[in-house]
Amino acid sequence: MDEWFVWRAGSCDNRRCLVAGKMEEKNKGPLFIDEYVKLHPADLADRLLRLDAAARAELLKNLPSGVTAAAVAELDEEHYQLVTGALSAEHLADIVEEMPHDHAADLLGEMGEERREKVLSALDKEDSAPIEELLKYPEDTAGGIMDDRFFTLPSGSSVAQCLEEIRSKADERKEDISYLYVVDTGERLVGVVPLRELVFSKPSQMVDDIMLRDVKILRVDDDQEEVANQFEHYGYLGLPVLDAGGRMVGIVKATDVIEIAHDEATEDMQLMVGLSGEERSSTPWRTSLRRRLPWLYVNLATAFLAAFVVGMFEDTIKQMTALAVFLPIVAGQGGNAGMQTLTVIIRDMALGELEPGDGRRALFKEVLLGLIHGIAIGIVVGLIAWVWKGKPVFGLVAGLAMVLNQMAAALSGVLIPFSLKMLKIDPAMASSIILTTVTDVAGFFFFLGMAALAMQWLV
Amino acid sequence: MDEWFVWRAGSCDNRRCLVAGKMEEKNKGPLFIDEYVKLHPADLADRLLRLDAAARAELLKNLPSGVTAAAVAELDEEHYQLVTGALSAEHLADIVEEMPHDHAADLLGEMGEERREKVLSALDKEDSAPIEELLKYPEDTAGGIMDDRFFTLPSGSSVAQCLEEIRSKADERKEDISYLYVVDTGERLVGVVPLRELVFSKPSQMVDDIMLRDVKILRVDDDQEEVANQFEHYGYLGLPVLDAGGRMVGIVKATDVIEIAHDEATEDMQLMVGLSGEERSSTPWRTSLRRRLPWLYVNLATAFLAAFVVGMFEDTIKQMTALAVFLPIVAGQGGNAGMQTLTVIIRDMALGELEPGDGRRALFKEVLLGLIHGIAIGIVVGLIAWVWKGKPVFGLVAGLAMVLNQMAAALSGVLIPFSLKMLKIDPAMASSIILTTVTDVAGFFFFLGMAALAMQWLV
Repeated sequence: MDEWFVWRAGSCDNRRCLVAGKMEEKNKGPLFIDEYVKLHPADLADRLLRLDAAARAELLKNLPSGVTAAAVAELDEEHYQLVTGALSAEHLADIVEEMPHDHAADLLGEMGEERREKVLSALDKEDSAPIEELLKYPEDTAGGIMDDRFFTLPSGSSVAQCLEEIRSKADERKEDISYLYVVDTGERLVGVVPLRELVFSKPSQMVDDIMLRDVKILRVDDDQEEVANQFEHYGYLGLPVLDAGGRMVGIVKATDVIEIAHDEATEDMQLMVGLSGEERSSTPWRTSLRRRLPWLYVNLATAFLAAFVVGMFEDTIKQMTALAVFLPIVAGQGGNAGMQTLTVIIRDMALGELEPGDGRRALFKEVLLGLIHGIAIGIVVGLIAWVWKGKPVFGLVAGLAMVLNQMAAALSGVLIPFSLKMLKIDPAMASSIILTTVTDVAGFFFFLGMAALAMQWLV
Repeated sequence: MDEWFVWRAGSCDNRRCLVAGKMEEKNKGPLFIDEYVKLHPADLADRLLRLDAAARAELLKNLPSGVTAAAVAELDEEHYQLVTGALSAEHLADIVEEMPHDHAADLLGEMGEERREKVLSALDKEDSAPIEELLKYPEDTAGGIMDDRFFTLPSGSSVAQCLEEIRSKADERKEDISYLYVVDTGERLVGVVPLRELVFSKPSQMVDDIMLRDVKILRVDDDQEEVANQFEHYGYLGLPVLDAGGRMVGIVKATDVIEIAHDEATEDMQLMVGLSGEERSSTPWRTSLRRRLPWLYVNLATAFLAAFVVGMFEDTIKQMTALAVFLPIVAGQGGNAGMQTLTVIIRDMALGELEPGDGRRALFKEVLLGLIHGIAIGIVVGLIAWVWKGKPVFGLVAGLAMVLNQMAAALSGVLIPFSLKMLKIDPAMASSIILTTVTDVAGFFFFLGMAALAMQWLV
């Protein structure tokens, strides 16, 4: 660290200023400011994350605000605070001014209200108004992810007029114009024209005659998971977003949806095991602790439930301690088979691939599988139990417990997510914790209960 | 079923022919053929999957091959066989002829070699050659997912010449022309021009003067997971794909990548619990059985390992059966905490967000968390054990076992995926099975081992 300070101090001449953090230095070597400027914004965003605080501050002081803006727009929301938390409201306003409105709204949405107001009031009205507009939409809706830059053409104009209009504005405005949206005088969407179509049509044609009228649309309050599923199902490049009054207010692009598709799948995976859905290995440990420990306590409470069942049979175990040896097998097999079922069901639910009626079919399939798995595993476990203790009845009890346990696992793997969904809780939410409780409790109860009943043939 | 047959037979007049399967009928009611034709191809694909075999055959017999082709192109690869398996090679060739080459190659790639050859030989050379070309690339590479329809412009031509060229071909060719690729005489890519740029440049300008030269490219053998990460990281709409000789052979579009991003995340989630990575609730039960049972047997073998550890301490348990009651708590807490760590690490690895050096940082963070979690949980468990049996030493043993178990869980949650990766095995592969084995074995060993050592104060 010391070495680095000397180094930085010694190698700074105006815009050629070395910036290196501890991490940076070790992995990739330091860069000069003008090398940082040349990085792809997404790569610069990565660098900003990995620098230590002092080096990051140094770099942000020296970067042009347009460059910083592009990099900040690439950050995950949970990293905004880390990168921009130390900046003054004025510096932040300079950066926000250069960001696309949708990313600016994301950034401001993550701040405390006081700081947000400060930054907004440091902006021109022209910049702050559209951002405040976007801030009204919840971040996980179509309104929250849409871009407000799109190109509209007035219904009733000719192809030549439209091309002239685009040409006159294309230089100053940065939006994608692969698709042009035709609106009536009330800004209501009436059709879409691909640029390709417009370019190769006769100049005298009316835009209303060449536009596609049957346009799939999104509403501002559509859920982002649903939006991602629509994009995946239909393969759209982009979709227009309408507000409650039918006015076109933005577009959602396929590129924005890739990240959501990734995130939603990650989220389910994490929720299942009692994580927040947004945890990364780079999440600070205090944040991780705050999020994980409560779930571990919930899990502990459920584990005591399973322990209570074992406790009910303490006398049985005293008579035959070999029963205790088989407890991990009962718990392990039930938990694992149940997780397989659960993982399939939750994935299909999240992607909207389960239609009404499919639930019963899935339940039937999984219970059938549970029965077959139970028999296949039960035979092996039963034989080992028999051979080990030389008591055929012990084998029978262990084998039968496996069959029942596997069927309980199948049932809970299907019923837990469906029940959570019916209760309007995210089906992935802590489902694996509930599942292992059910399979442990049921498995121990079957196994030890049958052993208690058959005790006269066991000892 | 009977009713349906009467119904279908009674309501067929040429193109207006009712098609209804059992499922279909129950959920949405039957449709006429010309209603099926009007569906979005992705929705028609869903319908084809959900019909029973007889109704599907009836529908496929009546649909125009262009309509069927569009729907088949929307199917997941694992459903090709179900939908097209009963068709004759000639009928299939009619359908393949109407499909984009990349989807045709996907479909043919899933067939047996004999059937594939039959279909290919029923096609015109003009259709079969590019499909055979695409079939050479493994399906999970950039070459395997790319579209071979893209628009090239010859380097050295003027804007006017280029526009004329596009105009003359745009009607017959269906590819996306938002971006145009400039190639030299050896078909090597030298730059990219957005259509927007071309349209609004002076007709006399040379295309070489307006094109972007610094173009990010993919290679045919790039892994699709890597490709998806690139799209997510940089937000590309599409990227050109070059073969080993530097010739441009296709493009990968953001829309194709959404599905891959979803699938890769799903795959990891499934691999972790010993599923195939491609299992759906609609997967036939025999297929599920074949894939899941082997992993359950592996899990059984590892469960016996945990049981063996318990067996080592059978005498200890005989002296104090309360130990058996705490086994589910030891196993449950270790498994759950370990799964939290594992899930975070695997997600970050899959998305390429862990750089060299991050592994050590993650290990440090997780072990620290494990220590804190262990103390937090250990105090609760220790107190309960003490109060329950009235022996402070029992509380100490239970509490300390929790601390050690949580740290073992943290260590294995990080080290298992990193080790699998070093062995060039997918880090998600069965990692949860290995993890729970480690946490069970270590947890039981710490807990029962310490109890055995402290036995004189326990009874």
